[in-house]
This record gives sequence, structure tokens and C-alpha cells, in this order.
Amino acid sequence: MPAQLPADLDQSHDPARTSWVASANGHADFPIQNLPLGIFSPPGGAPRAGVAIGDEILDLPAALAAGLFAGDAEEAAQAANGSDLNALFALGRGPRQALRRRLSEILSADSPDRSKAEGLLQAAATVALHRPARIGDYTDFYVGIHHATHVGKLFRPDNPLLPNYKHVPIGYHGRASSIVASGVPVRRPKGQIMPPGATAPVFGPSQRLDYELELGVWIGTGNDLGEPVPVGSAGDHVAGFCLLNDWSARDIQAWEYQPLGPFLAKNFASSISPWVITPEALAPFRMAQPPRPAGDPAPLPYLTDAGDAAAGAFDIELEVLISTEGLKDKGLPPHRLALSNTRHMYWTVAQMIAHHTSGGCNLQPGDLLGSGTISGPTRGASGSILETTDGGREPIRLASGEERRFLADGDEVIFTARARRGGFASIGFGSCRATILPAR
Amino acid sequence: MPAQLPADLDQSHDPARTSWVASANGHADFPIQNLPLGIFSPPGGAPRAGVAIGDEILDLPAALAAGLFAGDAEEAAQAANGSDLNALFALGRGPRQALRRRLSEILSADSPDRSKAEGLLQAAATVALHRPARIGDYTDFYVGIHHATHVGKLFRPDNPLLPNYKHVPIGYHGRASSIVASGVPVRRPKGQIMPPGATAPVFGPSQRLDYELELGVWIGTGNDLGEPVPVGSAGDHVAGFCLLNDWSARDIQAWEYQPLGPFLAKNFASSISPWVITPEALAPFRMAQPPRPAGDPAPLPYLTDAGDAAAGAFDIELEVLISTEGLKDKGLPPHRLALSNTRHMYWTVAQMIAHHTSGGCNLQPGDLLGSGTISGPTRGASGSILETTDGGREPIRLASGEERRFLADGDEVIFTARARRGGFASIGFGSCRATILPAR
Repeated sequence: MPAQLPADLDQSHDPARTSWVASANGHADFPIQNLPLGIFSPPGGAPRAGVAIGDEILDLPAALAAGLFAGDAEEAAQAANGSDLNALFALGRGPRQALRRRLSEILSADSPDRSKAEGLLQAAATVALHRPARIGDYTDFYVGIHHATHVGKLFRPDNPLLPNYKHVPIGYHGRASSIVASGVPVRRPKGQIMPPGATAPVFGPSQRLDYELELGVWIGTGNDLGEPVPVGSAGDHVAGFCLLNDWSARDIQAWEYQPLGPFLAKNFASSISPWVITPEALAPFRMAQPPRPAGDPAPLPYLTDAGDAAAGAFDIELEVLISTEGLKDKGLPPHRLALSNTRHMYWTVAQMIAHHTSGGCNLQPGDLLGSGTISGPTRGASGSILETTDGGREPIRLASGEERRFLADGDEVIFTARARRGGFASIGFGSCRATILPAR
Repeated sequence: MPAQLPADLDQSHDPARTSWVASANGHADFPIQNLPLGIFSPPGGAPRAGVAIGDEILDLPAALAAGLFAGDAEEAAQAANGSDLNALFALGRGPRQALRRRLSEILSADSPDRSKAEGLLQAAATVALHRPARIGDYTDFYVGIHHATHVGKLFRPDNPLLPNYKHVPIGYHGRASSIVASGVPVRRPKGQIMPPGATAPVFGPSQRLDYELELGVWIGTGNDLGEPVPVGSAGDHVAGFCLLNDWSARDIQAWEYQPLGPFLAKNFASSISPWVITPEALAPFRMAQPPRPAGDPAPLPYLTDAGDAAAGAFDIELEVLISTEGLKDKGLPPHRLALSNTRHMYWTVAQMIAHHTSGGCNLQPGDLLGSGTISGPTRGASGSILETTDGGREPIRLASGEERRFLADGDEVIFTARARRGGFASIGFGSCRATILPAR
């Protein structure tokens, strides 16, 4: 490993480490250096916790029952002995790290535990994956400054980026009940729409259905009501990360959003990738927060953490693909709509948490934060189709001969993410995907 | 009872009915005609379900154990045999009505069950009252048209009531985790504020702390994702009502709320009255929805329910009182800040539910909806201090010699509600109250 590693990296990050699970070695998403947690159902079985390793899933309760854990790792595995990960999230960093280290031992190529663990694997292709936690509250931020600027231009041509944007990590409350796991189809919503030039709204299927490419943040240990989390310790409250598609009906949004913000334009569904990518797995891919452009205001003190790498940013590549019925019929691969990166976040995850709790609001284990749409500066890095097509004016042309200004019924939207850095094994998030069903 | 009663009223609504619990007879809030449900802890005991009757609380699990219920009422009592009412809410109207009818029998003056039930009462003054349900999601509407107009004038003098207001039951997602039961003190939040004339925001205690007088709606049976609730059956999804104080930091709100709506200005705390006032208890106080002013647009078809009384409105008097340290020191009673009424809601509860689910969003048992601030047309009927003092310009003068433009530390805000109608026993909601603690 490179000499300049942060102190909290350990042998579980060694790029030379391989697994006796052959499919893990060189796996695009889940090599032994990743070890994400999730909730799955084996065929005919009840939901339970598992760890993704290559194309397999290690059944965590079964591994616990087989006596593979002790100490803090056992405490963590016991907390994951139900149908969600909330109790494990609540334990915080120590037990989670111990579980990771032990899993890395159990699954490593030279593990003495191989014979005990081999029978505890399930082929990922045969299981159902679920939401990993009960989500108490879901908050969506707006930290993608390029997205805020592009969309602001479409909704408010004269006033794209509002005066508060560079001072306040803008966020709002979203709907928790309608968050679904990757793979669950999403039905096109109906809603009130004010057609261009009309004097009264109509009620009907959204004609401007969109995705939003976001980083999701799972809250681990929370805070008590009235007790803000300082930005310097905000990283201690993160249990992990996922991909989040905050589906958006732009026509419903445009008519309803003033003065209290988006509501039905967003709450018909949000999709999440099912694997919880831990802060430990992402530790090698942290980076210093990119410097603010000259002339931007410095963050207020409660959002400033000069010393702590936990307040830094992440270098994670984000990709948006679309597969249409036309592409599938012709055997053509999905079309790449965008390649973006978490480095385009104007506010860090730590700043989001510090701001969220600064007035006393309590976060709880299993709460989900969304980053807001992460677009890069160019059109090929746009995290929403609204930006890619300039509000529907410039259609996307697909190899099937189809065009898209917004999403069509039958379209499948696929997000992936990959973290890479010289000297480390690259890891991925798995995919967040869903197909659009026609309005009822 | 009057001859023109809706068909769903029964002997439990008979104003002549009295209880062997003497304090219930003529009780301002909890006569035998009310019978609200809640979660309480007796001294030294665990949280459990109870029924308010006068100054007493009937211990519901104890009554179940004593064999006082059978059939649907027993099913309902069994569902309420935990530390929250979510499972009872999920059962819907039938079992809830059966429970009410049986409770009315058990507690009536001529009940043969008196001797069995007498030992199952707890003095309300000795218990702790809790949130009655686990709140999955909390949605706040904005259906008080006088409030929307008054506040709109302060935030947007040239554009008080936005063009969508009379077409869309405007709502937005709120924070569920920070909803607390009446009696829990509320700490003044700190936050980002842009002082008048300043060029950069500061971070500090809110100087414009406010209450918001709202009707809360508990969701009973919910709907599946993607399956809208028609307005005509929306009433079937209501488990009950409460008072809701959606505390608001106006200075934080003014700076943060664009473009995605209020966030930290609201999520530091919301207070609710602990007793669930059932739709059955409120049935006598339903009224036809007041006609819209001439020239207002008719609601779209999905919000129109010509036939069903469940889509109607309620006639419930709402009161706001303030007690300050100065008033308490001088032995003076609380000062009435406002007297309003739920008839000032521009959209009904049924319209709120139909709109919320119209795009497919799923409501779940125990979800809470807020009406938004219910102000009348006059200043004495204002549901927020922002309106009463015209944005802080015209102070309220109290008998203690104190003045208030916004809330001060130590102030206690008290909401009450009363439903009255000739030929019926009037009922109340109990109070929703909290005292402001200084910022940390």
C-alpha cells in the first residue's frame, strides 16, 4: 500500500489480498476490499443480513450461528440478526470495523475458516435484495452546485443560484415510505400539471419524468433532540453509503413547488441500491474538499472543520445508463447518459450532518440523507435528463433510433458507482435500477 | 338527539348519557361522549394504551385482561396491547367503532361492569402521556387560506397567494423524529440568519420564534405504493385527530426556504396533544364544506366528492393561550392570543389525503398529517404570532406589563380545542402545551 495512507487503513484494504470466493478476485463491485452489508432473502427464506463477496452473499446470521465471530465482531453480527440493519447502524464505528476486519479474515484466500464458511454462501443471482434498514426519516440535500445552477436556469432564468446557496447546505424533508430497493418497478405518477399557455391545471400522467443521480448516506449513531453534532465528529454518525435515484416529475414539480418545495413531484418513489458501502471501505477514496472558487464565501464556523479528514470529500465515479425497449429488442447495450463524480459536491457529508442537526434536529439510526443531484459542469456529466436535454429541448438519440427528451414507459434507468485510486483495489456500489411502468 | 343526525351516530353520542366516573360528567374535554385513545405511563409503569374519561384514564390492557371485551372490540383492544397505537390504527374503522361502543357501555352510569372497571383507572394527573403512535412520515399541509395570505404578504408583499393555491392542496414533508408530546419543553434553535441590511448570514439563536396552530390527522389504514386513495373513501383512512404546534423560527425560515421549502426553521420540534380524538367522537361536529368564494376555481375531479359527508369539514373551535414568567409570577392567568376554527380550512382532510396519494405515494398507519396553520380572517383569530404582531411590528401587551413580538424564553404556549353543537355534549382535545427553553 502507498506510504501516505491515512492511519485508519488496515490489512483489509491491502490490494494484494484475495478471497477463496473466486468470483471476488477482480470483481468490479465486490472484491474482498469492499464487504458491503445488506438484507437479502434466499429462495423461500426470510429476510436476513448478508455480506456481498464477488457473486456470492455470506449469510451473516448463519455465520454467527457457526461461531465465526467473537468480541466486538460478534456484538455487531448479533445486532444484525434481524430483518434490518438499524441495530447494527446504532452501534457505530467500533463494532462495524471489528466486523469488517473479521469478515476480511474469514473470506481471505488463506483463511482457516474457509471450510466453515463455504456452506454459508448464497449465489447473489438467486436472492431478493431489500431496503437494508427501516428508514425513519429521509432528507434530501441539494449540494450538487452544477445541478442547482443548471436547474435553477430552467426554473428561474433570471435567478439560477439563489443568494443562500453558498452559505446554507440547502436541504428538505423527503418521503421515507416510498423508498424502494433497486429492481422494484416505478409507476409513472399522475398529478396536477399546468400546461404551457393554459389558464387552469389538468390532472394526468407526468409527461416530464426524470431521474436524479444522488449519493445516499445511511445514518449510524444518531443524536438526541436538542444536541447538535459538531462538524468535526459528523463522520462518526455515518453507517454507510448507497446510490439513490430521487425520481422526479418535472411538470408536477414546476406547478406545485412554490412556496413550500417539491412534494408529489418526488414522493411517488425513490430507489436505492441495496448494499451499504461502509466508510471503512471508502476510506482510501477520501480526498480533501476541493477548494471553493475564488470569491465564494467561507463556510460559517459551525460548518468549518479545518483538521479532520472525515469532513473531506470522496472521489467516486457515478454513472447513469438507460436501457429502453428499443435497445433491448435489438440486443443493444444500455446507453450511457452521464458520467459524474462525488467531487462535484459543494458541501461535504459532514457539513450536511452538522447543518441538519445545528438547530437541534435529531437524526436516528437508519435515517437516510440524499446528496441532491450530482452533476458535473458539462452536459455529459449531468445527473438528470432535464439537464442533459436542456429541459427537453435537445433530445438524446439512441443507437436503436429512439429519441428521449424525458423518460418513456419501459425505460430502465441504471446507476452505478466506482471508486478507484492508484495503489488500491477499486470497489463499486452495485447498481440502483428500476423500470418505468405506465401510469395507472 | 336531533332528528337530522347522520346515520352513523349511535347511543355513544347521546348527550344524556353519563358515566359512573363522576369527573367525566360535564367535563370540558373528556365526557363519556369523547373516549379518546392515548399512550400513558402510570407511576413506575411501562407505556400502555388508555382511554381518557374525565380526570381519569382507563387502562386498556388491564381492561382486556379483565375480560371486558369480546368480538371486534376485543380485536381492537388486543391491537392496542403494546406501547403504541399503530396496530389499532391499522385495523381501521370497524374494530375502532366496536371498541368505542363497548367503552361507552363499560363507563356508562348504569354499567353492570362498573365493579370490574373501577380498579382499572389511573388519575390523569399522576401519569406521563406520550406520542400515541410511531410516526413513520409526517406531512404538513397549508390549507389555512387566511394564514397563507397573511404570511404570503410578509414574505412576498407583491405576491401573497401564489397561483397554485386554489388548485393544489399545498403540502410538504416534515420531520417525524422531532415530534414530541405535549409537555416536553422545546429548546430555542440556533441557525443561519441573514440580519436586515447585512451582506452575510450569522449563526445564532432564532430571534423570531413562533408557534403554528394546526389540526393533526392520524392515518389509520394506509394505501399501497402506487394505489391512490379516492377522495370519496379518504375518510376511511383517518384514525383520529390531535392538536399540532408546528414551531417555526421565522428568521431561519426566511433565509433558508428558497427554493426547496422550510427545513431547519421547522424540524427542531413539533408538539402534539397526546389524545387521539376519533372520527366517531367528532361525527356530530362535521359540517358541509363552506362554499368557495365567488370566482374561485372548482376543485379538479380527483378532489371533488359531491356526495360523501366524510369529505366535509369540521366545526372545531381552536384556542391559543400564552403564559409567560411575568404572568405566572403575578398569579395572572394565561393570555388568549387567538380563537380560530377548523372551518377556515380551504381544503378538507379528505382532499388532503386524496391529493397526497394521487401520484401513488403510500400512507401508513401512524403517519401524521398537519393542516397547516389555521387562522381566521381577523387578527384575533391568527394561528401564528407572526400574523398577530404583523411580522413583529405591533407588539402584544400582556396584563403583566410584558410585551411580545415573538416568543421569549420561558413562555408557555397552550393550544386547546372544543367542538360544540346544539343537541350534543361538547368535547375537547385536551391541551397541546410546551415551554420555551433558552438556546444552548
